Amino acid sequence: MSKAHVGIVMGSDSDLPVMQGAADVLRQFGVPFEMSVISAHRTPHRAASYASTAEERGLKVIIAGAGGAAHLAGVMASLTTIPVIGVPLMSQLQGVDSLYSTVQMPSGVPVATVGVNAAKNAALLAVEILALADQELRRRLREHRESLAAEVERKNRNLTEAGSGPALPDRA
Amino acid sequence: MSKAHVGIVMGSDSDLPVMQGAADVLRQFGVPFEMSVISAHRTPHRAASYASTAEERGLKVIIAGAGGAAHLAGVMASLTTIPVIGVPLMSQLQGVDSLYSTVQMPSGVPVATVGVNAAKNAALLAVEILALADQELRRRLREHRESLAAEVERKNRNLTEAGSGPALPDRA
Amino acid sequence: MSKAHVGIVMGSDSDLPVMQGAADVLRQFGVPFEMSVISAHRTPHRAASYASTAEERGLKVIIAGAGGAAHLAGVMASLTTIPVIGVPLMSQLQGVDSLYSTVQMPSGVPVATVGVNAAKNAALLAVEILALADQELRRRLREHRESLAAEVERKNRNLTEAGSGPALPDRA
Amino acid sequence: MSKAHVGIVMGSDSDLPVMQGAADVLRQFGVPFEMSVISAHRTPHRAASYASTAEERGLKVIIAGAGGAAHLAGVMASLTTIPVIGVPLMSQLQGVDSLYSTVQMPSGVPVATVGVNAAKNAALLAVEILALADQELRRRLREHRESLAAEVERKNRNLTEAGSGPALPDRA
Amino acid sequence: MSKAHVGIVMGSDSDLPVMQGAADVLRQFGVPFEMSVISAHRTPHRAASYASTAEERGLKVIIAGAGGAAHLAGVMASLTTIPVIGVPLMSQLQGVDSLYSTVQMPSGVPVATVGVNAAKNAALLAVEILALADQELRRRLREHRESLAAEVERKNRNLTEAGSGPALPDRA
Amino acid sequence: MSKAHVGIVMGSDSDLPVMQGAADVLRQFGVPFEMSVISAHRTPHRAASYASTAEERGLKVIIAGAGGAAHLAGVMASLTTIPVIGVPLMSQLQGVDSLYSTVQMPSGVPVATVGVNAAKNAALLAVEILALADQELRRRLREHRESLAAEVERKNRNLTEAGSGPALPDRA
Amino acid sequence: MSKAHVGIVMGSDSDLPVMQGAADVLRQFGVPFEMSVISAHRTPHRAASYASTAEERGLKVIIAGAGGAAHLAGVMASLTTIPVIGVPLMSQLQGVDSLYSTVQMPSGVPVATVGVNAAKNAALLAVEILALADQELRRRLREHRESLAAEVERKNRNLTEAGSGPALPDRA
Amino acid sequence: MSKAHVGIVMGSDSDLPVMQGAADVLRQFGVPFEMSVISAHRTPHRAASYASTAEERGLKVIIAGAGGAAHLAGVMASLTTIPVIGVPLMSQLQGVDSLYSTVQMPSGVPVATVGVNAAKNAALLAVEILALADQELRRRLREHRESLAAEVERKNRNLTEAGSGPALPDRA
Repeated sequence: MSKAHVGIVMGSDSDLPVMQGAADVLRQFGVPFEMSVISAHRTPHRAASYASTAEERGLKVIIAGAGGAAHLAGVMASLTTIPVIGVPLMSQLQGVDSLYSTVQMPSGVPVATVGVNAAKNAALLAVEILALADQELRRRLREHRESLAAEVERKNRNLTEAGSGPALPDRA
Repeated sequence: MSKAHVGIVMGSDSDLPVMQGAADVLRQFGVPFEMSVISAHRTPHRAASYASTAEERGLKVIIAGAGGAAHLAGVMASLTTIPVIGVPLMSQLQGVDSLYSTVQMPSGVPVATVGVNAAKNAALLAVEILALADQELRRRLREHRESLAAEVERKNRNLTEAGSGPALPDRA
Repeated sequence: MSKAHVGIVMGSDSDLPVMQGAADVLRQFGVPFEMSVISAHRTPHRAASYASTAEERGLKVIIAGAGGAAHLAGVMASLTTIPVIGVPLMSQLQGVDSLYSTVQMPSGVPVATVGVNAAKNAALLAVEILALADQELRRRLREHRESLAAEVERKNRNLTEAGSGPALPDRA
Repeated sequence: MSKAHVGIVMGSDSDLPVMQGAADVLRQFGVPFEMSVISAHRTPHRAASYASTAEERGLKVIIAGAGGAAHLAGVMASLTTIPVIGVPLMSQLQGVDSLYSTVQMPSGVPVATVGVNAAKNAALLAVEILALADQELRRRLREHRESLAAEVERKNRNLTEAGSGPALPDRA
Repeated sequence: MSKAHVGIVMGSDSDLPVMQGAADVLRQFGVPFEMSVISAHRTPHRAASYASTAEERGLKVIIAGAGGAAHLAGVMASLTTIPVIGVPLMSQLQGVDSLYSTVQMPSGVPVATVGVNAAKNAALLAVEILALADQELRRRLREHRESLAAEVERKNRNLTEAGSGPALPDRA
Repeated sequence: MSKAHVGIVMGSDSDLPVMQGAADVLRQFGVPFEMSVISAHRTPHRAASYASTAEERGLKVIIAGAGGAAHLAGVMASLTTIPVIGVPLMSQLQGVDSLYSTVQMPSGVPVATVGVNAAKNAALLAVEILALADQELRRRLREHRESLAAEVERKNRNLTEAGSGPALPDRA
Repeated sequence: MSKAHVGIVMGSDSDLPVMQGAADVLRQFGVPFEMSVISAHRTPHRAASYASTAEERGLKVIIAGAGGAAHLAGVMASLTTIPVIGVPLMSQLQGVDSLYSTVQMPSGVPVATVGVNAAKNAALLAVEILALADQELRRRLREHRESLAAEVERKNRNLTEAGSGPALPDRA
Repeated sequence: MSKAHVGIVMGSDSDLPVMQGAADVLRQFGVPFEMSVISAHRTPHRAASYASTAEERGLKVIIAGAGGAAHLAGVMASLTTIPVIGVPLMSQLQGVDSLYSTVQMPSGVPVATVGVNAAKNAALLAVEILALADQELRRRLREHRESLAAEVERKNRNLTEAGSGPALPDRA
């Protein structure tokens, strides 16, 4: 079995329905990954050891999802120099607390933050990073972009065919 | 068939239930329009060509609805000089992200922004603009305003007749 | 003297430094305009008569700037069917109160809202609207866009010439 | 029938479920009132005439409920010098737009703003104002306050009796 | 000396520059008032006794200015049934904390809230309330409104005379 | 029966479902407590007497939960020098009003604020404070932390066993 | 020299001007303390060892000040069971990011949060906690409260003597 | 001269003082870069060609800084599959508009967002990404982290030596 290239971590298993989206994308692109429940606040030692050993275990990118006072991505970033992608999760304060806690990192320790609940985009960003050294991944990314465009075009055709196109004015 | 005067574009077909409101208003006023799914981010080339050719294709106004990092109206506005009306769509962050992304355009490239999900008002604004050169449209706008007022008056009468009017004090 | 095509109104003469930006742009484009201090709350009768007579006096667009509970654009819009452009002015609450008060209009009475303090963009939007029936204005708008692009390009060249361009790596 | 002392106005009959709370309180206190649907934006003339004639018709207080770009209370306040109480109604932007549009009035034209959807408190405030010249109302207000306190005390007793009181420690 | 009809209270003497605005307006209208520094949190007993005895001491309205977790108006309102007007003062969080703490009162205990730092409007609201039983005050309020309008008109004339009026188009 | 060491107070019995979480935690740790419905605004005298007598009645910590213009914790803190923990409760404005009203206390009168609806954390904080003089409580806190970590680890194992672990790449 | 009872930590020495306020209060109350610059993100190992050894080193309370994605208090709280008081520091986003990052902790790991920049209140809260086992501290806290009240009363007298008291009406 | 690996783009040369921070960091790490002024709205064609040709020109990462309705990073991301890092720049709305416009990208097109004005962190993130294929860069990143820690430790020592350490209690 391949060694994981991406580590997906989340603060609670209740975050799984959202973070699963990252796993789905990585699987689709054929990127080996691992997924763990690690809490910055409830299992701080494990969070620290996870981040500290990430590089030597072969991880190239960490994706961390957390909500509220969302410190998980920041804790990871403080203990490794591989890129850490933060996913602010929806919360009581509409995700604004999660977003601010994830993105407003101090100078010296960046977290690459994506949108609220945007686990899929976090995975795509990880793939974009890995593709810098993997032409096959780059090719798949381009195909993926083309499929996105094709899907929009298909929806556009459906819209037009459904008669929502040019209207007949009632005063011809 | 008349050439469309208004182009309604939206980032995803999931925006259709809201943006349909713009189509309904334009149809009611007899303004020929077209409706398309175009994504600023997933079909950037198509977005660019749509805006760049809008004027020569006869469009006079573009109505663009998008949510989140809502760039669609701004992208349109950057590539045409006909008026672009932006409809910020409801989103995870209560539409505030959509509103800010749509309205806070840099100097030189305005977007005429209406309220969150206010597709009908976007269409009315388009009609107000077109009516500057179309007395019949101006007449219909005035009728529409009168019908709005009449409906409020009717609701007011219902309220009064329902006995919600002047109360009988309990210490006459 | 030409009759004004655009009416610029503002709630207080303290708004003049910002709203002057709209006047400057209109003058640059050769669009005749008038500028007035009218308060929705302190001179409500004058606000009402201004809007009610706007069309017959030849105005084609109204630009209204106000801050705080910024009702001026909405009051104008409620009494005319020519397009009303609202400029939310910077305020105690960072312009957020002005923005919300201007843009969140009820269904039936739109205000074309631009960014906080974006008086220049309000004027450009007015020009875009007027240009629908004025090829000369359209031509000037295109020139204006080209000048914007040229200025960005000029700044870009300055940046490169200033040596901020490609860096010499320190490990050749 | 007594002449109304309080005029309750709202922008739409969809606001009735909330604004009815104001009517209920006034009825409970025996204060004669009238209730109307008036839109600052859709029936601006009626809004103006309502406010302008309020005092001569015997109104002593106006309660105005509106949402979004909530101008109704401000429009009323601009055309009368009797106290106007504004009720910001829940909206797309969580009532924040309604609150800001109602409370941030310019110097010279105050609106007495209560909490989001707080129609009952608006009515109580009206009663407090009317009670300045009506000892019987003052007495009822004091009774009402006592009944509020008694209800809290009753709930407190229920809580204690339900065994939620002092806990038995598990290490006596 | 007349007994005070309005009590102005503020949490700290650092609030005086803003709250002085309320005193100025009351003095201008000839309304007797008193002004005190009382802190809901640092002098809770005095705050309670002030509110509890307000009515018997002849006060008809209390104006309370406070910032941050602004409880002063609410504390006052909880211990009297005369109207309490709250002035949310500018604060670290741009006055939003002050505003929310003042306006979002629970059902049963209203505070008539004005805009951030709007001490003058608080005083005008107090005058509007007192004028319900004082025709002379009502007359002065009307005069005050007329003077506001006259000042706006004067500023408008200055603007026009300064040549900011109708522009000469550059392509006659 | 032991005298209560912690007093849990809340503004309304509708807050009980959330505040019960604090009671559950205290019971779990064997800390004697009492629970009361007290409103800062509807029962101000009782709120004052509760706080003023808290220390002499043997309370060591007060936990106060309230929403909106949430003054309960602040009122308590103004009348005692034992620690007061504030729980901002979810509200119309997403708990932001409750949070600001609770945390932004003036200099001299602190409230130890926890997250929105975080009644359990309020109780844990109370236990942490009491444990400074109670080695048995300290031991239980450590056990509790270990159980939190163990639960996260258990969830992590479930996740791995469920096959969400390292993915098999589709291009071996 | 006494062993420190309170540990004041801050993310950067630029936070010293604010956090010094906590030191001043502790010194005033005669509470031995230590003060350190520790960054959750730049010195994560030291942050962890500081918190892990806090209790054995005799610390009873930790006060942690940080801004932006303010994780310092949370990191401390995750590694000790003594009370941790968080001071959200003013930041680019007006302290809102700091506040949310500090207060919205997950269930199980509380941080006692005070207002933005409220280092003095953090120290007072620490003193309140320590006073539970120190009657002398309790006595000083009461004196401190009395001095706060006395200062407010003194300011109130100054205000009255300065002639800002009861106004002479201009229509005696 | 080396081909640039990182492209720094910004919407205006007024953004240079902030974005220069990214250049400084890249120069410090010996990463060849280029810096350009490109506006998503004023030079849309150039923005599109820049992004479209980025990969073939050898760029591996793009750093885009913009404020307000900050579309530049999103436009770049829509036209390339190399990682795009967005820097939301401080703005009228305190950077919140810039942040939301940059981070809330639709599914399929991620932008790696850093904090407001955090150009240095954007560059560090770029270096972290490039270091995945460059052991020398990885080594420099570790050194950089160590220097950050060392600087914090140095500041900590200064603090202690300045006598801000353990306080002498005044009641020994």
